Amino acid sequence: MLKWDHKDNILIVGLGLIGGSYARALKKQGYTVNAIDKDPDAIAYALEERIIDRGKTDASLIQDADRIILALYPSLVTDWIRMHRGDFKSGSLLTDVTGIKSAIVYEIQKILPEDAEFIAAHPMAGREVYGVRNSSEKIFTGANYIVVPTEKNTPDAVAWCRELGQILGFSTISVLSPEEHDKMIAYVSQLTHCIAVALMTCEDNEHLKDYTGDSFRDLTRIANINADMWTELFFMNREALLEYMDGFIDEMKTLRDMIDRQDQAGLKAKMQLSSQRRGQFDRKP
Amino acid sequence: MLKWDHKDNILIVGLGLIGGSYARALKKQGYTVNAIDKDPDAIAYALEERIIDRGKTDASLIQDADRIILALYPSLVTDWIRMHRGDFKSGSLLTDVTGIKSAIVYEIQKILPEDAEFIAAHPMAGREVYGVRNSSEKIFTGANYIVVPTEKNTPDAVAWCRELGQILGFSTISVLSPEEHDKMIAYVSQLTHCIAVALMTCEDNEHLKDYTGDSFRDLTRIANINADMWTELFFMNREALLEYMDGFIDEMKTLRDMIDRQDQAGLKAKMQLSSQRRGQFDRKP
Repeated sequence: MLKWDHKDNILIVGLGLIGGSYARALKKQGYTVNAIDKDPDAIAYALEERIIDRGKTDASLIQDADRIILALYPSLVTDWIRMHRGDFKSGSLLTDVTGIKSAIVYEIQKILPEDAEFIAAHPMAGREVYGVRNSSEKIFTGANYIVVPTEKNTPDAVAWCRELGQILGFSTISVLSPEEHDKMIAYVSQLTHCIAVALMTCEDNEHLKDYTGDSFRDLTRIANINADMWTELFFMNREALLEYMDGFIDEMKTLRDMIDRQDQAGLKAKMQLSSQRRGQFDRKP
Repeated sequence: MLKWDHKDNILIVGLGLIGGSYARALKKQGYTVNAIDKDPDAIAYALEERIIDRGKTDASLIQDADRIILALYPSLVTDWIRMHRGDFKSGSLLTDVTGIKSAIVYEIQKILPEDAEFIAAHPMAGREVYGVRNSSEKIFTGANYIVVPTEKNTPDAVAWCRELGQILGFSTISVLSPEEHDKMIAYVSQLTHCIAVALMTCEDNEHLKDYTGDSFRDLTRIANINADMWTELFFMNREALLEYMDGFIDEMKTLRDMIDRQDQAGLKAKMQLSSQRRGQFDRKP
Protein backbone atom coordinates (compact mmCIF):
# COMPACT_ATOMS: atom_id res chain seq x y z
CA MET A 1 0.00 0.00 0.00
CA LEU A 2 1.65 3.22 -1.15
CA LYS A 3 1.10 6.23 1.02
CA TRP A 4 3.09 9.01 -0.64
CA ASP A 5 0.98 12.17 -0.78
CA HIS A 6 -0.07 13.15 -4.32
CA LYS A 7 -0.18 16.79 -3.25
CA ASP A 8 3.61 16.91 -3.04
CA ASN A 9 5.34 18.98 -5.65
CA ILE A 10 8.19 17.05 -7.30
CA LEU A 11 11.15 18.78 -8.93
CA ILE A 12 13.48 16.91 -11.26
CA VAL A 13 16.87 18.52 -11.73
CA GLY A 14 18.38 17.42 -15.02
CA LEU A 15 16.10 16.18 -17.81
CA GLY A 16 18.27 13.54 -19.47
CA LEU A 17 17.51 9.89 -20.08
CA ILE A 18 17.04 9.08 -16.39
CA GLY A 19 15.45 12.37 -15.28
CA GLY A 20 13.06 12.20 -18.23
CA SER A 21 12.15 8.59 -17.43
CA TYR A 22 11.46 9.55 -13.78
CA ALA A 23 9.23 12.37 -15.03
CA ARG A 24 7.24 10.07 -17.32
CA ALA A 25 6.73 7.42 -14.63
CA LEU A 26 5.68 9.92 -11.93
CA LYS A 27 3.40 11.84 -14.26
CA LYS A 28 1.61 8.61 -15.20
CA GLN A 29 1.00 8.00 -11.49
CA GLY A 30 -0.69 11.38 -11.21
CA TYR A 31 2.02 13.40 -9.48
CA THR A 32 2.80 17.06 -10.15
CA VAL A 33 6.21 17.03 -11.81
CA ASN A 34 8.33 20.10 -12.49
CA ALA A 35 11.80 20.15 -13.98
CA ILE A 36 14.94 22.25 -14.31
CA ASP A 37 17.46 21.79 -17.10
CA LYS A 38 20.04 24.15 -18.56
CA ASP A 39 18.97 23.06 -22.05
CA PRO A 40 15.82 24.97 -23.18
CA ASP A 41 15.16 22.32 -25.86
CA ALA A 42 14.89 19.55 -23.26
CA ILE A 43 12.38 21.64 -21.27
CA ALA A 44 10.38 22.54 -24.37
CA TYR A 45 10.24 18.91 -25.49
CA ALA A 46 9.13 17.71 -22.03
CA LEU A 47 6.38 20.36 -21.83
CA GLU A 48 5.17 19.51 -25.31
CA GLU A 49 5.08 15.80 -24.48
CA ARG A 50 3.29 16.66 -21.22
CA ILE A 51 5.76 14.67 -19.15
CA ILE A 52 6.26 17.70 -16.88
CA ASP A 53 3.84 20.34 -15.59
CA ARG A 54 6.28 23.24 -15.41
CA GLY A 55 9.85 23.59 -16.60
CA LYS A 56 12.57 26.23 -16.28
CA THR A 57 16.19 26.77 -17.20
CA ASP A 58 16.74 28.81 -14.02
CA ALA A 59 16.37 27.89 -10.35
CA SER A 60 12.99 29.52 -9.70
CA LEU A 61 11.11 26.23 -9.19
CA ILE A 62 13.24 25.04 -6.25
CA GLN A 63 11.39 26.92 -3.52
CA ASP A 64 8.05 25.22 -4.37
CA ALA A 65 9.48 21.71 -4.33
CA ASP A 66 8.57 19.23 -1.59
CA ARG A 67 10.65 16.49 -3.19
CA ILE A 68 13.74 17.06 -5.34
CA ILE A 69 15.29 14.39 -7.57
CA LEU A 70 18.83 15.14 -8.69
CA ALA A 71 19.44 13.53 -12.08
CA LEU A 72 22.72 15.29 -12.86
CA TYR A 73 26.18 14.08 -13.87
CA PRO A 74 27.98 12.66 -10.80
CA SER A 75 30.47 15.53 -10.56
CA LEU A 76 27.71 18.18 -10.56
CA VAL A 77 25.47 16.89 -7.77
CA THR A 78 27.39 18.19 -4.76
CA ASP A 79 28.08 21.58 -6.34
CA TRP A 80 24.42 22.02 -7.27
CA ILE A 81 23.36 21.43 -3.67
CA ARG A 82 26.05 23.78 -2.39
CA MET A 83 24.90 26.48 -4.78
CA HIS A 84 21.22 26.18 -3.85
CA ARG A 85 21.39 25.26 -0.16
CA GLY A 86 19.54 28.46 0.78
CA ASP A 87 16.65 27.84 -1.65
CA PHE A 88 15.17 24.59 -0.30
CA LYS A 89 11.70 24.59 1.25
CA SER A 90 11.65 23.65 4.93
CA GLY A 91 10.97 19.93 5.30
CA SER A 92 11.93 19.10 1.73
CA LEU A 93 13.35 15.69 0.87
CA LEU A 94 16.08 15.28 -1.76
CA THR A 95 17.28 12.15 -3.54
CA ASP A 96 19.57 11.39 -6.48
CA VAL A 97 20.25 8.83 -9.22
CA THR A 98 24.05 8.75 -9.06
CA GLY A 99 25.95 5.54 -9.73
CA ILE A 100 28.46 6.05 -6.91
CA LYS A 101 27.68 7.00 -3.34
CA SER A 102 30.48 7.38 -0.75
CA ALA A 103 32.11 10.20 -2.70
CA ILE A 104 28.99 12.38 -2.57
CA VAL A 105 26.51 11.33 0.14
CA TYR A 106 28.47 12.35 3.25
CA GLU A 107 29.48 15.65 1.70
CA ILE A 108 25.90 16.49 0.69
CA GLN A 109 24.54 15.63 4.13
CA LYS A 110 27.15 17.95 5.65
CA ILE A 111 26.22 20.87 3.36
CA LEU A 112 22.41 20.62 3.62
CA PRO A 113 20.48 22.90 6.00
CA GLU A 114 18.97 21.24 9.10
CA ASP A 115 15.39 21.36 7.80
CA ALA A 116 16.04 19.42 4.58
CA GLU A 117 17.11 15.79 4.16
CA PHE A 118 19.06 13.98 1.46
CA ILE A 119 18.46 10.25 0.99
CA ALA A 120 20.60 8.63 -1.72
CA ALA A 121 19.30 6.15 -4.28
CA HIS A 122 20.70 4.34 -7.30
CA PRO A 123 18.27 3.29 -10.02
CA MET A 124 20.25 0.59 -11.86
CA ALA A 125 18.71 1.29 -15.22
CA GLY A 126 20.26 2.69 -18.34
CA ARG A 127 20.60 2.43 -22.05
CA GLU A 128 23.21 3.05 -24.70
CA VAL A 129 21.28 6.19 -25.71
CA TYR A 130 21.01 9.62 -24.11
CA GLY A 131 18.67 12.52 -23.53
CA VAL A 132 15.04 13.16 -22.66
CA ARG A 133 13.92 12.20 -26.16
CA ASN A 134 15.03 8.60 -25.48
CA SER A 135 13.50 8.52 -22.00
CA SER A 136 10.91 5.89 -21.12
CA GLU A 137 9.50 4.60 -17.86
CA LYS A 138 9.90 1.10 -19.31
CA ILE A 139 13.64 1.12 -18.55
CA PHE A 140 12.75 0.53 -14.88
CA THR A 141 10.86 -2.71 -15.51
CA GLY A 142 12.92 -5.70 -14.41
CA ALA A 143 15.63 -3.42 -13.00
CA ASN A 144 17.10 -2.97 -9.50
CA TYR A 145 16.69 0.10 -7.31
CA ILE A 146 18.93 0.61 -4.31
CA VAL A 147 18.24 2.94 -1.38
CA VAL A 148 21.53 4.03 0.19
CA PRO A 149 20.95 5.59 3.65
CA THR A 150 23.55 6.79 6.12
CA GLU A 151 23.21 7.05 9.91
CA LYS A 152 21.95 10.59 9.44
CA ASN A 153 18.81 9.54 7.56
CA THR A 154 15.38 9.33 9.22
CA PRO A 155 13.17 6.21 8.84
CA ASP A 156 10.57 8.40 7.09
CA ALA A 157 13.02 9.46 4.40
CA VAL A 158 14.15 5.85 3.83
CA ALA A 159 10.50 4.75 3.60
CA TRP A 160 9.70 7.51 1.08
CA CYS A 161 12.74 6.65 -1.04
CA ARG A 162 11.75 2.96 -1.15
CA GLU A 163 8.23 3.95 -2.11
CA LEU A 164 9.59 6.13 -4.91
CA GLY A 165 11.33 3.03 -6.31
CA GLN A 166 8.03 1.11 -6.22
CA ILE A 167 6.11 3.94 -7.86
CA LEU A 168 8.72 4.15 -10.62
CA GLY A 169 8.13 0.46 -11.35
CA PHE A 170 11.42 -1.14 -10.32
CA SER A 171 11.30 -4.90 -9.87
CA THR A 172 13.72 -5.23 -6.97
CA ILE A 173 14.27 -2.68 -4.23
CA SER A 174 17.04 -3.11 -1.68
CA VAL A 175 18.93 -1.13 0.94
CA LEU A 176 22.73 -0.94 1.15
CA SER A 177 25.20 1.30 2.96
CA PRO A 178 27.25 3.68 0.75
CA GLU A 179 30.31 1.46 1.19
CA GLU A 180 28.46 -1.77 0.37
CA HIS A 181 26.89 -0.10 -2.64
CA ASP A 182 30.17 1.20 -4.02
CA LYS A 183 31.95 -2.15 -3.60
CA MET A 184 29.09 -3.99 -5.31
CA ILE A 185 28.86 -1.51 -8.17
CA ALA A 186 32.63 -1.60 -8.71
CA TYR A 187 32.33 -5.31 -9.45
CA VAL A 188 29.02 -5.82 -11.26
CA SER A 189 29.01 -2.61 -13.26
CA GLN A 190 32.27 -0.64 -13.37
CA LEU A 191 34.64 -3.60 -13.81
CA THR A 192 32.39 -5.05 -16.53
CA HIS A 193 32.44 -1.73 -18.42
CA CYS A 194 36.26 -1.60 -18.18
CA ILE A 195 36.46 -5.15 -19.54
CA ALA A 196 34.17 -4.36 -22.47
CA VAL A 197 36.25 -1.27 -23.33
CA ALA A 198 39.56 -3.17 -23.08
CA LEU A 199 38.19 -5.97 -25.27
CA MET A 200 37.34 -3.44 -27.99
CA THR A 201 40.53 -1.40 -27.73
CA CYS A 202 43.11 -4.23 -27.33
CA GLU A 203 42.83 -5.18 -31.01
CA ASP A 204 42.13 -3.36 -34.25
CA ASN A 205 39.05 -5.46 -34.94
CA GLU A 206 37.09 -3.80 -37.72
CA HIS A 207 37.82 -6.61 -40.19
CA LEU A 208 36.44 -9.14 -37.68
CA LYS A 209 32.89 -7.86 -37.62
CA ASP A 210 31.67 -10.54 -40.05
CA TYR A 211 32.82 -13.29 -37.74
CA THR A 212 31.49 -12.23 -34.38
CA GLY A 213 28.87 -14.41 -32.76
CA ASP A 214 26.35 -13.48 -30.10
CA SER A 215 28.84 -13.97 -27.27
CA PHE A 216 31.17 -11.27 -28.57
CA ARG A 217 28.27 -8.91 -29.21
CA ASP A 218 26.86 -9.54 -25.73
CA LEU A 219 30.24 -8.96 -24.12
CA THR A 220 30.81 -5.67 -25.91
CA ARG A 221 27.33 -4.12 -25.99
CA ILE A 222 28.34 -1.85 -23.10
CA ALA A 223 31.59 -0.96 -24.89
CA ASN A 224 29.51 1.78 -26.52
CA ILE A 225 29.94 3.98 -23.50
CA ASN A 226 29.26 7.57 -22.37
CA ALA A 227 32.90 8.61 -21.92
CA ASP A 228 32.20 11.73 -19.84
CA MET A 229 29.90 10.07 -17.32
CA TRP A 230 31.84 6.84 -16.87
CA THR A 231 35.15 8.65 -16.46
CA GLU A 232 33.57 10.56 -13.57
CA LEU A 233 32.08 7.39 -12.06
CA PHE A 234 35.37 5.50 -12.30
CA PHE A 235 37.39 8.32 -10.70
CA MET A 236 34.83 8.83 -7.91
CA ASN A 237 34.94 5.13 -7.01
CA ARG A 238 38.62 4.67 -7.73
CA GLU A 239 39.66 2.70 -4.68
CA ALA A 240 36.98 -0.01 -4.92
CA LEU A 241 37.29 -0.25 -8.71
CA LEU A 242 41.10 -0.59 -8.68
CA GLU A 243 40.84 -3.43 -6.18
CA TYR A 244 38.50 -5.37 -8.47
CA MET A 245 40.54 -4.55 -11.58
CA ASP A 246 43.66 -5.91 -9.86
CA GLY A 247 41.78 -9.05 -8.78
CA PHE A 248 40.44 -9.61 -12.28
CA ILE A 249 43.83 -9.00 -13.96
CA ASP A 250 45.41 -11.52 -11.55
CA GLU A 251 42.72 -14.06 -12.39
CA MET A 252 43.28 -13.56 -16.13
CA LYS A 253 47.01 -14.13 -15.55
CA THR A 254 46.24 -17.34 -13.63
CA LEU A 255 44.11 -18.64 -16.52
CA ARG A 256 46.80 -17.53 -18.98
CA ASP A 257 49.48 -19.51 -17.15
CA MET A 258 47.24 -22.58 -16.86
CA ILE A 259 46.75 -22.52 -20.63
CA ASP A 260 50.46 -21.91 -21.20
CA ARG A 261 51.55 -24.95 -19.17
CA GLN A 262 48.49 -27.00 -20.22
CA ASP A 263 47.24 -27.48 -16.67
CA GLN A 264 44.11 -29.41 -17.60
CA ALA A 265 42.89 -30.08 -14.05
CA GLY A 266 43.41 -26.47 -12.97
CA LEU A 267 41.65 -24.98 -15.97
CA LYS A 268 38.69 -27.37 -15.73
CA ALA A 269 38.29 -26.57 -12.02
CA LYS A 270 38.12 -22.84 -12.88
CA MET A 271 35.52 -23.48 -15.57
CA GLN A 272 33.45 -25.67 -13.27
CA LEU A 273 33.49 -23.00 -10.57
CA SER A 274 32.52 -20.43 -13.21
CA SER A 275 29.60 -22.54 -14.48
CA GLN A 276 28.36 -23.28 -10.99
CA ARG A 277 28.44 -19.60 -9.98
CA ARG A 278 26.88 -18.43 -13.23
CA GLY A 279 24.02 -20.88 -12.74
CA GLN A 280 22.95 -18.91 -9.69
CA PHE A 281 22.64 -15.76 -11.78
CA ASP A 282 20.09 -17.16 -14.20
CA ARG A 283 16.80 -15.34 -13.95
CA LYS A 284 13.97 -17.43 -12.61
CA PRO A 285 11.46 -18.00 -15.40
CA MET B 1 20.98 -22.48 -56.91
CA LEU B 2 21.99 -25.51 -54.89
CA LYS B 3 23.27 -28.50 -56.80
CA TRP B 4 24.24 -31.05 -54.16
CA ASP B 5 22.95 -34.52 -55.13
CA HIS B 6 20.15 -35.81 -52.93
CA LYS B 7 21.22 -39.40 -53.65
CA ASP B 8 24.34 -38.92 -51.53
CA ASN B 9 24.43 -40.86 -48.29
CA ILE B 10 25.42 -38.62 -45.38
CA LEU B 11 27.01 -39.97 -42.22
CA ILE B 12 27.17 -37.89 -39.06
CA VAL B 13 29.79 -39.03 -36.56
CA GLY B 14 28.83 -37.88 -33.06
CA LEU B 15 25.19 -37.10 -32.30
CA GLY B 16 25.53 -34.27 -29.80
CA LEU B 17 24.06 -30.78 -29.95
CA ILE B 18 25.79 -29.89 -33.23
CA GLY B 19 25.66 -33.34 -34.88
CA GLY B 20 21.98 -33.62 -33.98
CA SER B 21 21.24 -30.15 -35.35
CA TYR B 22 23.04 -31.02 -38.63
CA ALA B 23 20.92 -34.19 -38.83
CA ARG B 24 17.66 -32.30 -38.30
CA ALA B 25 18.50 -29.65 -40.90
CA LEU B 26 19.65 -32.13 -43.55
CA LYS B 27 16.71 -34.48 -42.97
CA LYS B 28 14.29 -31.58 -43.43
CA GLN B 29 15.94 -30.88 -46.79
CA GLY B 30 15.28 -34.47 -47.89
CA TYR B 31 18.73 -35.99 -47.54
CA THR B 32 19.48 -39.52 -46.35
CA VAL B 33 21.14 -39.09 -42.97
CA ASN B 34 22.83 -41.86 -41.01
CA ALA B 35 24.69 -41.48 -37.73
CA ILE B 36 27.24 -43.12 -35.47
CA ASP B 37 27.47 -42.43 -31.74
CA LYS B 38 28.96 -44.45 -28.93
CA ASP B 39 25.85 -43.71 -26.83
CA PRO B 40 22.98 -46.08 -27.75
CA ASP B 41 20.47 -43.69 -26.13
CA ALA B 42 21.44 -40.86 -28.51
CA ILE B 43 20.95 -43.19 -31.50
CA ALA B 44 17.63 -44.53 -30.18
CA TYR B 45 16.34 -41.00 -29.56
CA ALA B 46 17.39 -39.82 -33.05
CA LEU B 47 15.71 -42.82 -34.72
CA GLU B 48 12.54 -42.31 -32.70
CA GLU B 49 12.46 -38.61 -33.61
CA ARG B 50 13.14 -39.57 -37.25
CA ILE B 51 16.04 -37.13 -37.51
CA ILE B 52 18.22 -39.97 -38.88
CA ASP B 53 17.47 -42.87 -41.22
CA ARG B 54 19.90 -45.38 -39.76
CA GLY B 55 22.06 -45.28 -36.64
CA LYS B 56 24.76 -47.49 -35.12
CA THR B 57 27.12 -47.54 -32.18
CA ASP B 58 29.75 -49.34 -34.30
CA ALA B 59 31.54 -48.33 -37.51
CA SER B 60 29.51 -50.39 -39.97
CA LEU B 61 27.88 -47.37 -41.66
CA ILE B 62 31.15 -45.75 -42.76
CA GLN B 63 31.61 -47.72 -45.96
CA ASP B 64 28.24 -46.59 -47.37
CA ALA B 65 28.88 -42.91 -46.74
CA ASP B 66 29.45 -40.46 -49.59
CA ARG B 67 29.73 -37.52 -47.19
CA ILE B 68 30.97 -37.73 -43.60
CA ILE B 69 30.47 -34.97 -41.03
CA LEU B 70 32.68 -35.26 -37.97
CA ALA B 71 30.90 -33.74 -34.98
CA LEU B 72 33.25 -35.05 -32.30
CA TYR B 73 35.18 -33.41 -29.48
CA PRO B 74 38.24 -31.63 -30.91
CA SER B 75 40.77 -34.09 -29.47
CA LEU B 76 38.96 -37.11 -30.98
CA VAL B 77 38.70 -36.02 -34.63
CA THR B 78 42.20 -36.90 -35.81
CA ASP B 79 42.26 -40.22 -33.95
CA TRP B 80 38.89 -41.22 -35.37
CA ILE B 81 40.14 -40.63 -38.92
CA ARG B 82 43.36 -42.51 -38.21
CA MET B 83 41.39 -45.46 -36.85
CA HIS B 84 39.02 -45.64 -39.83
CA ARG B 85 41.25 -44.55 -42.71
CA GLY B 86 40.81 -47.94 -44.41
CA ASP B 87 36.99 -47.83 -44.25
CA PHE B 88 36.18 -44.76 -46.35
CA LYS B 89 34.37 -45.18 -49.69
CA SER B 90 36.42 -44.12 -52.68
CA GLY B 91 35.58 -40.49 -53.58
CA SER B 92 34.07 -39.68 -50.20
CA LEU B 93 34.19 -36.16 -48.84
CA LEU B 94 34.69 -35.48 -45.14
CA THR B 95 34.14 -32.29 -43.15
CA ASP B 96 34.06 -31.33 -39.46
CA VAL B 97 32.60 -28.83 -37.01
CA THR B 98 35.66 -28.21 -34.85
CA GLY B 99 36.30 -24.78 -33.33
CA ILE B 100 40.04 -24.81 -34.06
CA LYS B 101 41.71 -25.71 -37.33
CA SER B 102 45.52 -25.58 -37.70
CA ALA B 103 46.02 -28.23 -35.01
CA ILE B 104 43.95 -30.83 -36.88
CA VAL B 105 43.49 -30.00 -40.58
CA TYR B 106 47.04 -30.59 -41.82
CA GLU B 107 47.38 -33.80 -39.82
CA ILE B 108 44.07 -35.18 -41.13
CA GLN B 109 44.95 -34.37 -44.73
CA LYS B 110 48.24 -36.23 -44.25
CA ILE B 111 46.54 -39.35 -42.84
CA LEU B 112 43.66 -39.63 -45.35
CA PRO B 113 43.91 -42.05 -48.29
CA GLU B 114 44.36 -40.48 -51.75
CA ASP B 115 40.76 -41.17 -52.85
CA ALA B 116 39.06 -39.31 -49.99
CA GLU B 117 39.14 -35.57 -49.21
CA PHE B 118 38.80 -33.61 -45.98
CA ILE B 119 37.52 -30.03 -46.14
CA ALA B 120 37.35 -28.25 -42.79
CA ALA B 121 34.42 -26.10 -41.65
CA HIS B 122 33.47 -24.24 -38.50
CA PRO B 123 29.77 -23.68 -37.83
CA MET B 124 29.84 -20.80 -35.31
CA ALA B 125 26.69 -21.89 -33.54
CA GLY B 126 26.23 -23.21 -30.05
CA ARG B 127 24.24 -23.07 -26.90
CA GLU B 128 24.80 -23.44 -23.18
CA VAL B 129 23.11 -26.87 -23.36
CA TYR B 130 24.34 -30.23 -24.65
CA GLY B 131 23.26 -33.39 -26.37
CA VAL B 132 21.02 -34.49 -29.24
CA ARG B 133 17.89 -33.85 -27.13
CA ASN B 134 18.68 -30.12 -27.20
CA SER B 135 19.55 -30.09 -30.89
CA SER B 136 17.67 -27.82 -33.27
CA GLU B 137 18.34 -26.58 -36.80
CA LYS B 138 17.27 -23.14 -35.57
CA ILE B 139 20.69 -22.60 -33.93
CA PHE B 140 22.11 -21.95 -37.41
CA THR B 141 19.77 -19.06 -38.21
CA GLY B 142 21.65 -15.76 -38.00
CA ALA B 143 24.94 -17.55 -37.38
CA ASN B 144 28.27 -17.63 -39.27
CA TYR B 145 29.71 -20.63 -41.11
CA ILE B 146 33.34 -20.68 -42.13
CA VAL B 147 34.88 -22.93 -44.76
CA VAL B 148 38.58 -23.48 -43.99
CA PRO B 149 40.41 -24.94 -46.99
CA THR B 150 44.12 -25.66 -47.36
CA GLU B 151 46.16 -25.79 -50.58
CA LYS B 152 45.38 -29.50 -50.79
CA ASN B 153 41.64 -28.98 -51.22
CA THR B 154 39.90 -29.17 -54.61
CA PRO B 155 37.51 -26.43 -55.78
CA ASP B 156 34.72 -29.05 -55.84
CA ALA B 157 35.17 -29.88 -52.17
CA VAL B 158 35.21 -26.17 -51.24
CA ALA B 159 32.04 -25.61 -53.29
CA TRP B 160 30.29 -28.56 -51.62
CA CYS B 161 31.27 -27.37 -48.15
CA ARG B 162 29.90 -23.87 -48.85
CA GLU B 163 26.70 -25.41 -50.14
CA LEU B 164 26.41 -27.49 -46.98
CA GLY B 165 26.50 -24.25 -44.98
CA GLN B 166 23.70 -22.80 -47.13
CA ILE B 167 21.57 -25.95 -46.83
CA LEU B 168 22.01 -25.92 -43.03
CA GLY B 169 20.59 -22.39 -43.01
CA PHE B 170 23.57 -20.29 -41.93
CA SER B 171 23.22 -16.56 -42.55
CA THR B 172 26.82 -15.76 -43.42
CA ILE B 173 29.27 -18.08 -45.15
CA SER B 174 32.91 -17.16 -45.54
CA VAL B 175 36.25 -18.70 -46.40
CA LEU B 176 39.40 -18.35 -44.28
CA SER B 177 42.75 -20.13 -44.12
CA PRO B 178 43.36 -22.29 -41.02
CA GLU B 179 45.73 -19.66 -39.62
CA GLU B 180 43.33 -16.75 -40.26
CA HIS B 181 40.51 -18.76 -38.72
CA ASP B 182 42.45 -19.64 -35.57
CA LYS B 183 43.63 -16.08 -35.02
CA MET B 184 40.09 -14.72 -35.47
CA ILE B 185 38.54 -17.34 -33.20
CA ALA B 186 41.17 -16.74 -30.49
CA TYR B 187 39.96 -13.15 -30.26
CA VAL B 188 36.21 -13.19 -30.84
CA SER B 189 35.44 -16.46 -29.08
CA GLN B 190 38.22 -17.95 -26.94
CA LEU B 191 39.40 -14.70 -25.32
CA THR B 192 35.80 -13.71 -24.56
CA HIS B 193 35.16 -17.08 -22.87
CA CYS B 194 38.34 -16.65 -20.77
CA ILE B 195 37.16 -13.18 -19.73
CA ALA B 196 33.71 -14.43 -18.73
CA VAL B 197 35.25 -17.23 -16.65
CA ALA B 198 37.73 -14.88 -14.95
CA LEU B 199 34.95 -12.39 -14.14
CA MET B 200 33.00 -15.15 -12.38
CA THR B 201 35.96 -16.70 -10.57
CA CYS B 202 37.82 -13.53 -9.47
CA GLU B 203 35.25 -12.80 -6.75
CA ASP B 204 33.01 -14.87 -4.52
CA ASN B 205 29.88 -13.27 -5.92
CA GLU B 206 26.89 -15.34 -4.80
CA HIS B 207 25.59 -12.58 -2.52
CA LEU B 208 25.66 -10.15 -5.46
CA LYS B 209 23.09 -11.90 -7.61
CA ASP B 210 20.28 -9.56 -6.50
CA TYR B 211 22.19 -6.55 -7.78
CA THR B 212 23.30 -7.62 -11.22
CA GLY B 213 21.92 -5.76 -14.19
CA ASP B 214 21.68 -6.89 -17.77
CA SER B 215 25.25 -5.93 -18.57
CA PHE B 216 26.69 -8.31 -16.00
CA ARG B 217 24.36 -11.10 -17.12
CA ASP B 218 25.26 -10.52 -20.77
CA LEU B 219 28.97 -10.53 -20.00
CA THR B 220 28.82 -13.80 -18.08
CA ARG B 221 26.24 -15.82 -20.03
CA ILE B 222 29.10 -17.78 -21.62
CA ALA B 223 30.70 -18.29 -18.18
CA ASN B 224 28.46 -21.36 -18.01
CA ILE B 225 30.93 -23.34 -20.07
CA ASN B 226 31.58 -26.93 -21.19
CA ALA B 227 34.87 -27.42 -19.30
CA ASP B 228 36.01 -30.52 -21.23
CA MET B 229 35.48 -29.07 -24.69
CA TRP B 230 36.82 -25.58 -24.06
CA THR B 231 39.93 -26.88 -22.29
CA GLU B 232 40.69 -28.87 -25.46
CA LEU B 233 39.98 -25.86 -27.72
CA PHE B 234 42.17 -23.54 -25.63
CA PHE B 235 45.10 -25.97 -25.56
CA MET B 236 44.85 -26.72 -29.29
CA ASN B 237 44.95 -22.98 -30.13
CA ARG B 238 47.34 -22.04 -27.35
CA GLU B 239 49.71 -19.81 -29.27
CA ALA B 240 47.09 -17.52 -30.80
CA LEU B 241 45.03 -17.40 -27.62
CA LEU B 242 47.99 -16.54 -25.37
CA GLU B 243 48.90 -13.66 -27.66
CA TYR B 244 45.40 -12.17 -27.33
CA MET B 245 45.25 -12.82 -23.60
CA ASP B 246 48.53 -10.96 -23.15
CA GLY B 247 47.27 -8.08 -25.28
CA PHE B 248 44.03 -7.87 -23.33
CA ILE B 249 45.77 -8.07 -19.93
CA ASP B 250 48.11 -5.26 -21.01
CA GLU B 251 45.13 -3.15 -22.08
CA MET B 252 43.37 -3.74 -18.74
CA LYS B 253 46.57 -2.62 -16.98
CA THR B 254 46.68 0.51 -19.12
CA LEU B 255 43.09 1.38 -18.17
CA ARG B 256 43.87 0.53 -14.53
CA ASP B 257 46.80 2.94 -14.47
CA MET B 258 44.79 5.69 -16.20
CA ILE B 259 42.14 5.38 -13.48
CA ASP B 260 44.80 5.27 -10.75
CA ARG B 261 46.46 8.51 -11.88
CA GLN B 262 43.13 10.06 -12.95
CA ASP B 263 44.22 10.54 -16.55
CA GLN B 264 40.92 11.96 -17.80
CA ALA B 265 42.00 12.62 -21.40
CA GLY B 266 43.58 9.19 -21.76
CA LEU B 267 40.57 7.32 -20.38
CA LYS B 268 38.07 9.28 -22.47
CA ALA B 269 40.10 8.61 -25.62
CA LYS B 270 39.98 4.86 -24.88
CA MET B 271 36.22 4.99 -24.33
CA GLN B 272 35.69 6.98 -27.50
CA LEU B 273 37.70 4.46 -29.51
CA SER B 274 35.72 1.67 -27.87
CA SER B 275 32.36 3.28 -28.71
CA GLN B 276 33.39 4.01 -32.27
CA ARG B 277 34.58 0.44 -32.86
CA ARG B 278 31.57 -1.12 -31.13
CA GLY B 279 29.26 0.91 -33.36
CA GLN B 280 30.55 -1.03 -36.35
CA PHE B 281 29.49 -4.29 -34.73
CA ASP B 282 25.82 -3.37 -34.39
CA ARG B 283 23.64 -5.61 -36.49
CA LYS B 284 21.94 -3.84 -39.35
CA PRO B 285 18.21 -3.74 -38.63
